[in-house]
Amino acid sequence: MAICPVYTTKSLHSTCSISTPSKTHLGFHQKQVVFYTTSGRKTSKRSGSTSSPYVITCSVGNSQTVVIGLAADSGCGKSTFMRRLTNVFGGAAEPPKGGNPDSNTLISDTTTVICLDDYHSLDRTGRKKKGVTALDPRANDFDLMYEQVKALKDGIAVDKPIYNHVTGLLDPPELIKPPKILVIEGLHPMYDARVRDLLDFSIYLDISNEVKFAWKIQRDMAERGHSLESIKASIQARKPDFDAYIDPQKQYADAVIEVLPTQLIPDDNEGKILRVKLIMKEGVEFFSPVYLFDEGSSISWIPCGRKLTCSYPGIKFSYGPDSYFGHEVSVLEMDGQFDRLDELIYVESHLSSISTKFYGEVTQQMLKLSDFPGSNNGTGLFQTIVGLKIRDIYEQIIASKTKTPVEATKA
Amino acid sequence: MAICPVYTTKSLHSTCSISTPSKTHLGFHQKQVVFYTTSGRKTSKRSGSTSSPYVITCSVGNSQTVVIGLAADSGCGKSTFMRRLTNVFGGAAEPPKGGNPDSNTLISDTTTVICLDDYHSLDRTGRKKKGVTALDPRANDFDLMYEQVKALKDGIAVDKPIYNHVTGLLDPPELIKPPKILVIEGLHPMYDARVRDLLDFSIYLDISNEVKFAWKIQRDMAERGHSLESIKASIQARKPDFDAYIDPQKQYADAVIEVLPTQLIPDDNEGKILRVKLIMKEGVEFFSPVYLFDEGSSISWIPCGRKLTCSYPGIKFSYGPDSYFGHEVSVLEMDGQFDRLDELIYVESHLSSISTKFYGEVTQQMLKLSDFPGSNNGTGLFQTIVGLKIRDIYEQIIASKTKTPVEATKA
Repeated sequence: MAICPVYTTKSLHSTCSISTPSKTHLGFHQKQVVFYTTSGRKTSKRSGSTSSPYVITCSVGNSQTVVIGLAADSGCGKSTFMRRLTNVFGGAAEPPKGGNPDSNTLISDTTTVICLDDYHSLDRTGRKKKGVTALDPRANDFDLMYEQVKALKDGIAVDKPIYNHVTGLLDPPELIKPPKILVIEGLHPMYDARVRDLLDFSIYLDISNEVKFAWKIQRDMAERGHSLESIKASIQARKPDFDAYIDPQKQYADAVIEVLPTQLIPDDNEGKILRVKLIMKEGVEFFSPVYLFDEGSSISWIPCGRKLTCSYPGIKFSYGPDSYFGHEVSVLEMDGQFDRLDELIYVESHLSSISTKFYGEVTQQMLKLSDFPGSNNGTGLFQTIVGLKIRDIYEQIIASKTKTPVEATKA
Repeated sequence: MAICPVYTTKSLHSTCSISTPSKTHLGFHQKQVVFYTTSGRKTSKRSGSTSSPYVITCSVGNSQTVVIGLAADSGCGKSTFMRRLTNVFGGAAEPPKGGNPDSNTLISDTTTVICLDDYHSLDRTGRKKKGVTALDPRANDFDLMYEQVKALKDGIAVDKPIYNHVTGLLDPPELIKPPKILVIEGLHPMYDARVRDLLDFSIYLDISNEVKFAWKIQRDMAERGHSLESIKASIQARKPDFDAYIDPQKQYADAVIEVLPTQLIPDDNEGKILRVKLIMKEGVEFFSPVYLFDEGSSISWIPCGRKLTCSYPGIKFSYGPDSYFGHEVSVLEMDGQFDRLDELIYVESHLSSISTKFYGEVTQQMLKLSDFPGSNNGTGLFQTIVGLKIRDIYEQIIASKTKTPVEATKA
């Protein structure tokens, strides 16, 4: 019987038990050993607790979990993005069956999305007590994050904590089996160098202050009745930690989706029409940046004209090489929005290296999810394209791996 | 024996003589009747003469002469353009053999280029006497121009006057046989409605005042020792007539090549780096405008980048639909210049509808004539492309014509 490698951590002592061989959720059809490592921590759920209960469950199969990191502030459309991504793979993403109804995890046939808020080391009261925000690294357990992501990447199931967004408490853990594609989304997927190194591909959703402000006003003022002052104050309060701990991660991202105010309307501050940039790092293995018409040159394109009619203020695409935090990148930009989503095929047909499997797949995906926020602008378009690129990266990684099983070692 | 139709004109009485059947210069291989019409005008060469000696020689073949009009001010690169055009058809263009050494005509296997200065009704002294410039319609014989262009278009050879640019006198006429392609180039090809209607395709070379001024300074000051003041004065003197009689013709042109100062260098007034626009009328029979990447949308393209290195200030192309004197047009623009002409293939490969017969034909043409002025910028590129379009138009017209011989009528 094969035994999985022990993933030692400073905070865990290895009290392992062997369960029955099982098949993972993922369709790895070889026999597997499940190896439990139970933490010696208290299972305390008291506020301010710095420890939480968890179990590492190891399902050694082929080490084929591809790990994707998605960083963004809260309220920036991560969940929409995740739904677009999982849709690319076909199956609907749902919380783990029969588990905590407040679980933040989404599981589909291919993809498991875990929310990094689950690695909060301080719950809401704890943070208040210590005077730190959730953005502060001191409110997060990067050791555990690293251990568990590494375990999953190595094909080992883990018992991941749950941060309950409703109660603000740390709930008992849930079992996460290694999926084909693991997406870790949240505030800090690229903050810790060890976690960052585990990522096969990383994305940063960069919402400009102007747009973030317009969105918060829309949501918190129009829908929740908050005052303009309180919204401003809450943004201001988050800003120092955001700037210190979240924003710097974008320099590590392989792809950045930057959401800015439109330039098609002079002095627009409504934040309804968006200019969205897809910044793609050059030289990333398995990732070939999308381009418009001619790879590597600088292009602007107003598709409105004889073939595509657009209402004011129209649509403008730009593409070209640039530099981003000292890296060579290609940038694709869309300003404006589509009047008719079915006309997207016209735009799609002029984009190259979008990793579709058939002509019109981007348009089909966008039409299928047309009720999702951002479906008529660059956020939806670029999220969909990034989803297709992730599928492509996944398939290339799998194809490139020699499929030798992990060698068994004696217990 | 067939007799050609009589092309009556007010100024000519039809004293016709029949010569032996001959084959034209153009490779029409059917029997032809040559029909002389001798003018009753005096063969006076006195200055100020309003008549000139000419004979209409009619060679009735298939009426397959395609007529192209090229309008531009003097010193605007018409002759370079003509050499590029005739080169597209292969043969070298030369003045009529054994004729007046000061002839303005250029004849190649396919193309005959006649200079409309030959239709000056007033010679240099005559113009001075009457106080009119060569730009003034009163110094030009549009009746004769119309009659002779119509005759040539109908397959009838003409004895065309010669305006001697060296002496400023009207020289005895030269025989012009109907070519496959007749180009009439000069100040007024689209001024007279009757002449204009004979044109199968028309081009206007529009050199902006800034560039014209920079060119004149280069030529007249640097090369001929004129003073800046005298150059300015000469430009100013021409301007009213130019604005009244020459410039308005551009509204009739099927294609306009507009030469402007670069926008790549702020406040450039050297006139060395040019921004050149090719304005192409939509809906012209047999003429499909060139486009960049995507027909009918608006595009700007800086090809410099990963594949094409450019020195300062680089190269920028623009393309898009526009309106020009109330007509729908497509505009292709090139700002800047090529460092290496052989890299033009990269640009050529991204242009569509350029009517080449093989991949790289534009580049080959440009390389062949690389010592011509404008070979490294948009003037040479667009002149070459217009040359290819004219070849294409010619071939389409010929193909579309039912090749029934002109029906013979009894003398």
